[in-house]
Amino acid sequence: MRRWVRTGAALVLGAGLGVWLGRVTSLRPGEEQRGVGGLRGVGGLLERVPVIPVIPGVEASELTSRCVGGAAVMKYGFPSLANIKTRESYVTSYDPRTRTASWVIERLSPASLSGQSDRRSCDFKEDDSVNVLHRSTNADYRGSGFDRGHMAAAANHKWSQKAMQDTFYLSNVAPQNPQLNRSTWNNLEQHCRSLTKNYLNVYVCTGPLYLPRQEADGKLYVRYQVLGHNHVAVPTHFFKVLILEQMDGRGVELRSYVLPNEPIEEKVPLERFLVPIETIERAAGLQFVPNIMKRTSRLQSITAR
Amino acid sequence: MRRWVRTGAALVLGAGLGVWLGRVTSLRPGEEQRGVGGLRGVGGLLERVPVIPVIPGVEASELTSRCVGGAAVMKYGFPSLANIKTRESYVTSYDPRTRTASWVIERLSPASLSGQSDRRSCDFKEDDSVNVLHRSTNADYRGSGFDRGHMAAAANHKWSQKAMQDTFYLSNVAPQNPQLNRSTWNNLEQHCRSLTKNYLNVYVCTGPLYLPRQEADGKLYVRYQVLGHNHVAVPTHFFKVLILEQMDGRGVELRSYVLPNEPIEEKVPLERFLVPIETIERAAGLQFVPNIMKRTSRLQSITAR
Repeated sequence: MRRWVRTGAALVLGAGLGVWLGRVTSLRPGEEQRGVGGLRGVGGLLERVPVIPVIPGVEASELTSRCVGGAAVMKYGFPSLANIKTRESYVTSYDPRTRTASWVIERLSPASLSGQSDRRSCDFKEDDSVNVLHRSTNADYRGSGFDRGHMAAAANHKWSQKAMQDTFYLSNVAPQNPQLNRSTWNNLEQHCRSLTKNYLNVYVCTGPLYLPRQEADGKLYVRYQVLGHNHVAVPTHFFKVLILEQMDGRGVELRSYVLPNEPIEEKVPLERFLVPIETIERAAGLQFVPNIMKRTSRLQSITAR
Repeated sequence: MRRWVRTGAALVLGAGLGVWLGRVTSLRPGEEQRGVGGLRGVGGLLERVPVIPVIPGVEASELTSRCVGGAAVMKYGFPSLANIKTRESYVTSYDPRTRTASWVIERLSPASLSGQSDRRSCDFKEDDSVNVLHRSTNADYRGSGFDRGHMAAAANHKWSQKAMQDTFYLSNVAPQNPQLNRSTWNNLEQHCRSLTKNYLNVYVCTGPLYLPRQEADGKLYVRYQVLGHNHVAVPTHFFKVLILEQMDGRGVELRSYVLPNEPIEEKVPLERFLVPIETIERAAGLQFVPNIMKRTSRLQSITAR
């Protein structure tokens, strides 16, 4: 695996600005992912990328005070500040139009992965903190052919039955292809857990994407199915952003994946789905890098094999 | 024109819960809009419709203090609290994923409509308060075949050159069918202005919709074009919600319109595009009624001719 070691400016500037369209819309199982490592467009651009806007009166400490084993769930900030909910095992931003999360952030460590919690006693449940007009229900998923795919994975939170149960809120769920959910997606979740052996802390941010494709008329269209009475959006893709604290505490590594919401041959290695972080920031309308750069000046971005 | 006079509970319960899908997806020019006036589903439902969540530390007074002629732009609250920007002539919530506003609210009165401001000295401009990764540009629209359609209309803000110029931020703009923009949409904007003669204040909230349609496989899909390098979303429809304060100050009327983003025969009367407010609340992921009900107990909803 080749690694591009970059400082913040290089990361923002070099992460493929201008080529994201071609890369993302062509992302398909088995396709070779190539790193976009060159520095381009040096100049005033970095100054034009502001940090995430802070809502007056909302202290960052309030939003990062949710703890698992004593560490804030999202030490590295939030990718947006809309409709934030804090739960035992994660923090999430809800999108009332698509009826799914915009993103869900959790923190994994050996401590959070171990415990006696039992998935069999957990049931998917409506999130009654969401207005009934904007809420998904189990009935919306029934007979749809899609799984109720976890964003924050249940198996990441064996440390507490409540924490595991909280991952079963339908606001932590999006319609997911069953074959994807049970194979490559599951492998990616397991990979996140395995990284807790090699990193001090593993922060995982997961969410849906709605990516355009070129149609026969040569134009780009976003097209996605909606399910049930409440029109729950079926994402075209999912992202996972991994923020990895090195054991020596000196640096942070970033790995960002985009997987299509369709069957993927399990033999395709996960590395094929690595993308530049800016691909996700653009497509999802989120920001990761400015927040992380507030916490570290030593950021490695792992974008290709 | 028949009118359904309802109190708050009746409005929420009676505005077509359960039938919105059929109504919205079938909305086409010339189609008869019928009122959905019956009271249905009485019971615990109203209690399950919470008021809009308030972000801790954000005082409502801060968000409603923007004034035109001495009155808060949005006396009746905000339909969401994400990425709010206040401008001379309007308040808006920006959607960084679609690169357009989620909604824009303005307040019209005879005073705001009169003045010497000149549209010819206004130019569309990028909103540099938006991250460059999530911002639309004039280049995105160029050659697309779509107009840069104002959400808050320029002609509503002749009272101040700055107020008019602020309506030319591309964050107050969405891709709009040119024929719609210049005919029926323009007529609706003029209608809003004409109502200032008959009402104490006219609050107008405008925004995009992305509505599903049934395709050949019998399933529902949302499908919309995206424009340019920044993938600016082309809405399938637009909404306008009019909150009208009666001259005697005793009550509030609500008129809500949905227009498809396509050519409409100009002879089709505007009343044909009236829809129950809940149709917009559901489809846009927004809330209007709970906020309005904090200010008045006498709300008339005008939903059909």
